[in-house]
Amino acid sequence: MSAIRSLRGGRLSFRVSGGRCNSRIFSQRLHQQYPKMSTTTTTTTTTAPTNKRALDVSNINPNLLKAEYAVRGAIAVRSEEHRTAITLARGAGVPHDLPFDAVVSANIGNPQQLDQKPITFFRQVLSILEYPALLEVEGLFPGDVKERARRLLKDVGSVGAYSHSQGASGIRKSVAEFIQRRDGYPADPNSIFLTGGASSGVHTLLNTIRSSPKTGILIPIPQYPLYTATLALLNAVAVPYHLDEPNSWSTNVDLMREQIAAARKDGTDVRCVVIINPGNPTGASLSEADIEAVIDMAVEEHLVIMADEVYQTNVYRGEFHSFKKVLRNMQTRPGGEKYENVELASLHSTSKGMVGECGHRGGYFELYNFDEQVQAQIYKLVSITLCPPVIGQCLVELMVNPPKEGEPSYELYQKEYGAIYEGLKARSQALYAAFQNMTGVSCQDPQGAMYIFPQITLSKRAQAKALTEGKKPDEYYCLRMLDATGICVVPGSGFGQADGTWHFRTTFLPPGTEWVDRMHKFHEAFMEEFKDE
Amino acid sequence: MSAIRSLRGGRLSFRVSGGRCNSRIFSQRLHQQYPKMSTTTTTTTTTAPTNKRALDVSNINPNLLKAEYAVRGAIAVRSEEHRTAITLARGAGVPHDLPFDAVVSANIGNPQQLDQKPITFFRQVLSILEYPALLEVEGLFPGDVKERARRLLKDVGSVGAYSHSQGASGIRKSVAEFIQRRDGYPADPNSIFLTGGASSGVHTLLNTIRSSPKTGILIPIPQYPLYTATLALLNAVAVPYHLDEPNSWSTNVDLMREQIAAARKDGTDVRCVVIINPGNPTGASLSEADIEAVIDMAVEEHLVIMADEVYQTNVYRGEFHSFKKVLRNMQTRPGGEKYENVELASLHSTSKGMVGECGHRGGYFELYNFDEQVQAQIYKLVSITLCPPVIGQCLVELMVNPPKEGEPSYELYQKEYGAIYEGLKARSQALYAAFQNMTGVSCQDPQGAMYIFPQITLSKRAQAKALTEGKKPDEYYCLRMLDATGICVVPGSGFGQADGTWHFRTTFLPPGTEWVDRMHKFHEAFMEEFKDE
Repeated sequence: MSAIRSLRGGRLSFRVSGGRCNSRIFSQRLHQQYPKMSTTTTTTTTTAPTNKRALDVSNINPNLLKAEYAVRGAIAVRSEEHRTAITLARGAGVPHDLPFDAVVSANIGNPQQLDQKPITFFRQVLSILEYPALLEVEGLFPGDVKERARRLLKDVGSVGAYSHSQGASGIRKSVAEFIQRRDGYPADPNSIFLTGGASSGVHTLLNTIRSSPKTGILIPIPQYPLYTATLALLNAVAVPYHLDEPNSWSTNVDLMREQIAAARKDGTDVRCVVIINPGNPTGASLSEADIEAVIDMAVEEHLVIMADEVYQTNVYRGEFHSFKKVLRNMQTRPGGEKYENVELASLHSTSKGMVGECGHRGGYFELYNFDEQVQAQIYKLVSITLCPPVIGQCLVELMVNPPKEGEPSYELYQKEYGAIYEGLKARSQALYAAFQNMTGVSCQDPQGAMYIFPQITLSKRAQAKALTEGKKPDEYYCLRMLDATGICVVPGSGFGQADGTWHFRTTFLPPGTEWVDRMHKFHEAFMEEFKDE
Repeated sequence: MSAIRSLRGGRLSFRVSGGRCNSRIFSQRLHQQYPKMSTTTTTTTTTAPTNKRALDVSNINPNLLKAEYAVRGAIAVRSEEHRTAITLARGAGVPHDLPFDAVVSANIGNPQQLDQKPITFFRQVLSILEYPALLEVEGLFPGDVKERARRLLKDVGSVGAYSHSQGASGIRKSVAEFIQRRDGYPADPNSIFLTGGASSGVHTLLNTIRSSPKTGILIPIPQYPLYTATLALLNAVAVPYHLDEPNSWSTNVDLMREQIAAARKDGTDVRCVVIINPGNPTGASLSEADIEAVIDMAVEEHLVIMADEVYQTNVYRGEFHSFKKVLRNMQTRPGGEKYENVELASLHSTSKGMVGECGHRGGYFELYNFDEQVQAQIYKLVSITLCPPVIGQCLVELMVNPPKEGEPSYELYQKEYGAIYEGLKARSQALYAAFQNMTGVSCQDPQGAMYIFPQITLSKRAQAKALTEGKKPDEYYCLRMLDATGICVVPGSGFGQADGTWHFRTTFLPPGTEWVDRMHKFHEAFMEEFKDE
């Protein structure tokens, strides 16, 4: 019996080490070979002239058909339709027939689409990089803005030129210095790869590690669906490990070990463990002890560790511990030599935190302890698409090296940064409090990231109704919420959840509390409508 | 006997329809199944704790090992080492021991790394997008710059927010209007996908079309190595068709048909033809008749057409004809109904042309006649990485919708654009003339793009010397050129070339003619050094 099962009692029916946890998310496990589809639909006969199209869904990449990405899936598309309907009606000066006046996009961590303003220092420097003649305008910008712009221009030449494929060397040096300040241990600029957001870094790393359709990657459940989608595209095996919901969604290495053993028994070559810390969609923030346990497990099981740390500054309780720091600490203790070759890839991004510059597609990953020749192959892989966006690279530099005390931009930077942080923290608590008051909703105290992932109890009648609509119960609930309130959230099935449990992910980015009241009202009405007899 | 063979006489030994054209480039043809490597090196036993790393080159993605990308390969890396050595010596105030004072990067079409200045209108608008408070500064920017920035900000909200995964709708509308102006036929904004440079678009399209390891894609030889590298990564088959060197590197559809028949006989499912027009590395610009012949061939062979048109404004002789326009023209003629479902994907970029903004990673592809469900799958694929860089998207809008006559920025824009165009044209002719004077070098009159791809005659002694150095003859020549002159070019073997012929690709972007003189001097000395007895 699994740890989660024993903690949560008989209500849950899933087997942690089996394949029954979430059929849609893990459908790729059933296709460990090239699926039959691709061999039956491709023919090698010489095709006669025809008016039929060459491509249809029966003959394109079957791995693409399997991939799912709920964050921008059917519900998000429908929310855009509502938004367009409202805009068109307004433009035509006629009333629309929706029961709300604005769509609230709580489905995606996209701060600047909502309330969040960019940090002034960052954008002032970027404007000069785009148009260096602004350096000559007296009194337009503070001295440290101009100074930083000059330094970055010296490093990249023009933001319109391709940089080194790993990213401009001066920026990588700045990232290495940031990591050293954060962790107390040095970092090597040559092991840092700047990326176009963390997503492209994840793709680069998984594509490198994936050596056959049997390659298995441990991913948390619930997870950010980038991971299952990328593994589906790569035709690799997602090996799920469930997070410990009642224990603030923390990790449980015993469950991981069980899953590894079961997957290896099935012939899966488990090679890597993905940790998202702070968690997406869970909002969990791992303790140092949890991280040590994961590293010990990885050593024993001979796994590469991929630490997705894009929310490292979105921590509202306790403090963030990087995998790199914890691993380096472990190396210095007696017996630490067993950690000396642990391969760790850590990812960071300019899209989250108080930066929130999603549209600029900036990020980096640091490789630690990777084989030199493997790293050379990763370099080759990123060189094929030439380089990450150079403005995004410069933004990475600004993120890791913000104004210092005594510099002209320091005070404003601190004020803006602090206001964003306090706003996120307050909203997370307000939303958490609201969920506490909703019938049949349970929810973990938010520790980090930009999300809350409440569990909702859906009645047998609601489940039956969803079935008749051809939807999963949580999908049906979220669609009804969207149509009733304009609030767009993502059903738990898009992230994975224990069988028989239902959740949804909402960001706490939208401003105000009016939308939370609307959500509450919808929820109670839905519960009433589908109350079991 | 093939057309090229008959044109060029007995000196060439390659069989056009066979597999002997370039062993390195097409090594993936030998691995149509998952290579044995991956099944022999992955084990499924539970691994005991070990200090050995989990990843080495024997157990990572074998498709990655096969991929090659010469544009940023060994010679480019060595050129960076030379550059660093010069910089370090200068910094230390000591003389360096290289026989040149600066590295000339003629290996890559990266205009702003060299002489080319960004177009003022573009950068002024982008600087406002980064820092909209600049709109409030009186007298800083012309009215049309501010007007455009306001329009783009209205469309994207903030450049720091994720956009629609296909790109912001207003920008796609602007691209559709540009295509209509260019071709005289309407385009659908919903069939336009903005991309992070053309490279990511190529990856998206090939990843969609590739349905099994037997999927074959026709690619030109010589080609831009993005294509072979991407096909190697996707474990698909590159089916080469040779371009007609003595006929200005034009296409020959008879050669294509031969190759398709041979590949299909071998069990390859040929599904798509890639055309690069204007050509990279060849500099060829296709006539309308050539394009019509390719379209007819594609209809008969039931192929998707992928038209890489990133150099569409880099045309120095005649004019550019888009595949879309030629296809639409063919549809309007008697019997045109047979073209009604021809699937065409056309790519464009902000990196080339007179824009030259490589570092901004902007671009788009237009799908024409694609099945709606296939297009929905492509949407899903791009949504997994969220959206292309938003600043790059805005630059696409500026590229396709530059200042119009009568607007304040028009005159300067025209002047800058024209100067870049005339500069490129003059340099291409100067370089062409220089090659005419070099011993044993032949070269086609440059028609377009940013490159010349001269053929060099290498003596038996030079070839033997290369062999002893473990290099291909053209690689050895290019390395020697780099070490002697600091000029970095790319050997023809990185693009593919007929067996027994040797070429290199050089851009004509570096300013001045001094470097050309250096190249000439090196060449004559090399020819003298290795003169056959």
